[in-house]
Amino acid sequence: MISQQETGAFAERYRNDLLDDTVPFWLKNGLDSVHGGVLSSLTRDGAVLDSDKSVWAQGRFAWLLGTLARTVEARSEWIDAAESCLTFLDSHAFDRDGRMFFLLTQDGRPLRKRRYAFSEAFASMGHAAFASVTGSDRNAAEAIRLFRAFTDHVAEPKSNQTTRPTKGIGPVMIGINVAQTLRENLDFEEATEQIDRWIAEIEADFFHPSRNCLLEVVTVDGAVVDHFDGRTLNLGHAIEAAWFILHEARLRGRDTHLIELGTRILDCMWERGWDQTHGGLLYFTDLEGGSVQEYWHDMKFWWPHNEAVIATLLAYHLTGEVRFAKRHRLVHDWAHENFADPEFGEWFGYLHRDGSPSVKLKGNHWKGPFHVPRMQLYCWKLAEEMLGAM
Amino acid sequence: MISQQETGAFAERYRNDLLDDTVPFWLKNGLDSVHGGVLSSLTRDGAVLDSDKSVWAQGRFAWLLGTLARTVEARSEWIDAAESCLTFLDSHAFDRDGRMFFLLTQDGRPLRKRRYAFSEAFASMGHAAFASVTGSDRNAAEAIRLFRAFTDHVAEPKSNQTTRPTKGIGPVMIGINVAQTLRENLDFEEATEQIDRWIAEIEADFFHPSRNCLLEVVTVDGAVVDHFDGRTLNLGHAIEAAWFILHEARLRGRDTHLIELGTRILDCMWERGWDQTHGGLLYFTDLEGGSVQEYWHDMKFWWPHNEAVIATLLAYHLTGEVRFAKRHRLVHDWAHENFADPEFGEWFGYLHRDGSPSVKLKGNHWKGPFHVPRMQLYCWKLAEEMLGAM
Repeated sequence: MISQQETGAFAERYRNDLLDDTVPFWLKNGLDSVHGGVLSSLTRDGAVLDSDKSVWAQGRFAWLLGTLARTVEARSEWIDAAESCLTFLDSHAFDRDGRMFFLLTQDGRPLRKRRYAFSEAFASMGHAAFASVTGSDRNAAEAIRLFRAFTDHVAEPKSNQTTRPTKGIGPVMIGINVAQTLRENLDFEEATEQIDRWIAEIEADFFHPSRNCLLEVVTVDGAVVDHFDGRTLNLGHAIEAAWFILHEARLRGRDTHLIELGTRILDCMWERGWDQTHGGLLYFTDLEGGSVQEYWHDMKFWWPHNEAVIATLLAYHLTGEVRFAKRHRLVHDWAHENFADPEFGEWFGYLHRDGSPSVKLKGNHWKGPFHVPRMQLYCWKLAEEMLGAM
Repeated sequence: MISQQETGAFAERYRNDLLDDTVPFWLKNGLDSVHGGVLSSLTRDGAVLDSDKSVWAQGRFAWLLGTLARTVEARSEWIDAAESCLTFLDSHAFDRDGRMFFLLTQDGRPLRKRRYAFSEAFASMGHAAFASVTGSDRNAAEAIRLFRAFTDHVAEPKSNQTTRPTKGIGPVMIGINVAQTLRENLDFEEATEQIDRWIAEIEADFFHPSRNCLLEVVTVDGAVVDHFDGRTLNLGHAIEAAWFILHEARLRGRDTHLIELGTRILDCMWERGWDQTHGGLLYFTDLEGGSVQEYWHDMKFWWPHNEAVIATLLAYHLTGEVRFAKRHRLVHDWAHENFADPEFGEWFGYLHRDGSPSVKLKGNHWKGPFHVPRMQLYCWKLAEEMLGAM
């Protein structure tokens, strides 16, 4: 069990890390006062390691800052920085075909576009959070427009998949979170229907209880693909999906079916992914325990640990089961001992299996002001709710 | 210095490993008697781990077997297997636009196509080696046609590079080797002019002696790109390029300029890449010693070690410098101690920095019957030449 005292300590730790470390680290080091937006590729001590701008990072930071402004306090520093990221996106992140880029130069010229639509997803979240603070109809409309662009893109058949049509859990899982964000910020009630469809798809097609796992890639009908891609399990994605489902259960008055689905996914993927030798969560494992194609499968990345910290605390809150309390302490402690950098703040992102850092950078085109502060904000607020209920 | 006795021992080791271990491993476990061609994704003990077929592997295995048939003996087992790989390519590997695929199902249906033209490069090498054994005009013509398709593709401006046009050393370096292979097998004399152009491009644009390195990615004019991609050094590619240049020097009667260029590249990249802590060659390093974007940068892959074994022996042969003899022993010993699998044969492909295996598979879509046997064949024949000259 987690006592009132321990819950209070968790709340304080998550709050202080968020407001005194993570958010100041990115505002101080990442904000681009010349061109606007945020630079995410920073060294250990916050210097600019690469001036190219991640499109994902702009939408994600705007989401974080807008959410802080709505749920903590309406600091103008946060609102201005969120606006800067969104303005940078508006000015530079859209190609002529309407699709968003993935990477831009510091001053906004296009460098790379990908075939996925996650840039649209994160930009939608940013506009939604900003709209809820400022009341801007334009940002609210843009959030919904980008959400629809994302769902349309996900629904499109992919021309490169005629021989063996497959689908990944990524867009489904992230889609749930974007829809939850739009509903929370914009009273976008049609989100619930879409969330129900996506959760049903996870349960029907990606969750294979007979194999004791949530699969990352399946056939379009939800069957196992007995090749490298289909056997490779992504523990972080699975545990992230689990907490999005548990969050939905929490919002729906502890919906028992959703609690059961979320905790079953969390249970089986924790068993598969927690490293009994060194601690921490492995990045990929193979469905059958064989060789994974991705040779860096046993590294420890920051973000699956952020997802697991949230998922375990939320599962404990919803079920009171002792195993989730134990796992929360375990992953909280391992992550803070190995990823957190007390000397310069924020977290390292990439560790070897034994917990030693592979690189000491604080951000790149993927790691930025998102997973760490989202965990801190979610767990701070959840711990406070738990205290209130005690 | 490497004594006559040690040279003889090297020759014997490389020959025996090639003919008694590596080639039988792939012929026994990889050949597909039902659909033709070779399966490269094999477990440690040679079972099929993934039945999808790598297009690269077909061309590369055909090259190896054709070259063995020409330079060792005309075994029908080798010639038949080479033909099987090439027939599989002819029947299945070409898209309607004439470009080759990257990955096929076991029975030849298309799964993946990439924007690079390395499938064409390796298929060209396979046809050339096969043509030289069989005297087939059709295979000779196909080798040349595919080489031209490769060079045309390399020369095409890439539409995704308008903001910051860059170029990589990969096509240039592999192009040199394909041209050398065509010339060796087909008396394709125009190859030499193209090789000269590519070596000149490496010297002018990719080799930066003032920075003590061969760069992997530069601007189209050969300047440093001060971003992740431009600062990331690929030790294996650089050392491979070095020995292709040294091979050209060897063919041109110990051309002093080419010997100097090849050994300078080898010297500076060896210094940057050899791991003083654990031994072995690091995969990526940063130009300035900073954080590399690729978080698995410090893993040890089999193929850079194959290239370094060849490069060091060849550099020693051409210069007689003791440092190359020392490095040859060092990389030979480290690689054989850590990658070779005496229990089931062939080599592991992917080790952690400390030399422990990350995965124990013997092949996947990238690792197949190519780098290990190419090293064994080249070094066996080179050691014999060295013995003859002693």
